[in-house]
Amino acid sequence: MPVASQGTVKALTPEDLKTIGVTIVLGNTYHLYLRPGIDVIDKLGGLHRFMAWDGPILTDSGGYQVFSLARLCKVSDDGLAFRSHIDGSEHHITPESVIEFQQNLGVDIMMTLDECLPSNAEPSRLRGAVDRTSLWAERCLKRRTNPDQLLFGIVQGGTSAQLRKLSAKAITGMHFDGYAVGGLSLGEAKERTWSTVDETIPFLPSDKPRYLMGIGSPEDIIEGVSRGIDLFDSALPTRVARNGALFTMEGRQNVRKTIYKTKRGPIDANCDCYTCRNYSAAYLQNLFKCEELLAYRLATIHNLRFITRLMQQIAEAVRLGIFADFKKDFLHKYQVTNEEVRLTQKQKWLSTPRRRPHIEVQ
Amino acid sequence: MPVASQGTVKALTPEDLKTIGVTIVLGNTYHLYLRPGIDVIDKLGGLHRFMAWDGPILTDSGGYQVFSLARLCKVSDDGLAFRSHIDGSEHHITPESVIEFQQNLGVDIMMTLDECLPSNAEPSRLRGAVDRTSLWAERCLKRRTNPDQLLFGIVQGGTSAQLRKLSAKAITGMHFDGYAVGGLSLGEAKERTWSTVDETIPFLPSDKPRYLMGIGSPEDIIEGVSRGIDLFDSALPTRVARNGALFTMEGRQNVRKTIYKTKRGPIDANCDCYTCRNYSAAYLQNLFKCEELLAYRLATIHNLRFITRLMQQIAEAVRLGIFADFKKDFLHKYQVTNEEVRLTQKQKWLSTPRRRPHIEVQ
Repeated sequence: MPVASQGTVKALTPEDLKTIGVTIVLGNTYHLYLRPGIDVIDKLGGLHRFMAWDGPILTDSGGYQVFSLARLCKVSDDGLAFRSHIDGSEHHITPESVIEFQQNLGVDIMMTLDECLPSNAEPSRLRGAVDRTSLWAERCLKRRTNPDQLLFGIVQGGTSAQLRKLSAKAITGMHFDGYAVGGLSLGEAKERTWSTVDETIPFLPSDKPRYLMGIGSPEDIIEGVSRGIDLFDSALPTRVARNGALFTMEGRQNVRKTIYKTKRGPIDANCDCYTCRNYSAAYLQNLFKCEELLAYRLATIHNLRFITRLMQQIAEAVRLGIFADFKKDFLHKYQVTNEEVRLTQKQKWLSTPRRRPHIEVQ
Repeated sequence: MPVASQGTVKALTPEDLKTIGVTIVLGNTYHLYLRPGIDVIDKLGGLHRFMAWDGPILTDSGGYQVFSLARLCKVSDDGLAFRSHIDGSEHHITPESVIEFQQNLGVDIMMTLDECLPSNAEPSRLRGAVDRTSLWAERCLKRRTNPDQLLFGIVQGGTSAQLRKLSAKAITGMHFDGYAVGGLSLGEAKERTWSTVDETIPFLPSDKPRYLMGIGSPEDIIEGVSRGIDLFDSALPTRVARNGALFTMEGRQNVRKTIYKTKRGPIDANCDCYTCRNYSAAYLQNLFKCEELLAYRLATIHNLRFITRLMQQIAEAVRLGIFADFKKDFLHKYQVTNEEVRLTQKQKWLSTPRRRPHIEVQ
């Protein structure tokens, strides 16, 4: 799922998304609650109509954003009190209110409110978060009124196998429409992410969708699917695109590199996206060097097509029963690069702001 | 002509332009010469292929930009020496070199190099610029090798009727493919612009296109056409769009205004553009408030459609011989607003930089 936190996949229209082959997008209750307000979108006919996207929408409940983005977050059993990262205004959300918000947005898949701690938090706090997440999940389920709007539960527990098992058993006991593994996009080492997924998956029913939250690089998608994950979201493909890093089988290519200055062919000769079919790498480089708005759009189209095509190939390989071979082949060819492109001062606002907030637990 | 100085109409693809009904765009030799370099575009197959636009392209010679944008400009009969506004590097262009640049870009309509002074410059300097512009025009004509690439001459002379007549007679004596009125977008009062156009037009042949450079608001287009102008260019429609000012018959509407916060309908109920057909004014406002990249694209589409439709209506009215009525009717309905939308700090880089350079005449 490409990320459309504020009701738009950055720089793209719904028509662009359909041409790319995107079938579902992720909205964010926290962002839409602050701007323009859930009531505004509700009055205008819901989120689909607001953003002119008629495909499925999943919204995160906003819990993660309150923990990672808002200021002065106070957690209690009742819910989350916080200050807006935009204007510092005070807000209070509860498991019940986030379900109402998502129902009013009219989204297809809603998420429960969870307490989302960094996985290196103290064991006692992680345990507390697991219990509170279970308590909140139950209250979310109770408040849901429209069964056509699916509701997914979220498993927490940091990187503790014991806590993940505890959380998974509690959450799956409540019969949600799907199950998410949360709290694993907060910077822990990748091996710990995968061992935690391995320790969690056995407790998630195989007949319901499994969603690994906040993760979605090409190599992570392959690893996740091989462990039984069905659904991913990540701002990474679109964010690095806006920084000039384009996915290819040789890893992320920084389009500002000198080798592309006069390159007549596309940035990725194997790609069938609009950008690669119409523009040279040299043109793309010039757009980035000139900080032209079209740069961000063309690069985003390419990276989302890369991810979407990968998912299509994965689905096909799974259907044919040859996923293990596909994975081996892909990881053999694909060069994993974690190098981020350095941002210019002017470009920084193009990336989502990220603050380490002060979190207070009551 | 929408402005595509750096090989892109800001935020739009060629497909967007065709959907809008745009038939010709304006590139800029100065910008393309500095970035990525004329030789780079030449090697890549020319400007059309570079920017994936197969319609006509007119390029300004770069004279105006050297005077308005570059640093430490030195004018001599030989040409212009200047420092790049990007990195301060030294450059020297001549009437001959700008023709070679435009020939190598492969554009459809080339412009001569002119000396472009503010219209309130001293009479003796204005007179010198007229003479030098004539001298340069002749040298440009001589250097042109491909008659399929049209070449337009430029009339200068500030707001002096006498100098305009002198310049027009000299330039039209050289048999260009079209004639431009230059130097009138530099901030003089609008009445002086129109009286100067009135004093110049009689000396421009009626069987060749007449082009009023750097001017292109809706009301200016109407006024210009009624005086015999055929062709306009202006960054205004796209620039004000990126600032959130959208053309309507009630004048430019600032989409950030409170009245649009919950407006279900489009910003302009009479518009058939992609933006107005698909998005509420409320959605557009939220994109601008969130500084989402899609805002600039959707607003640009609307403003260019407004201008393009106006030009289509004008052409039709001229064909039917009812332009005088059309003009009266349009100016009766249309609310001229000069109010510019105030820019946020973060948005300022979206506008073209503009410096008052130090100009030294030798």
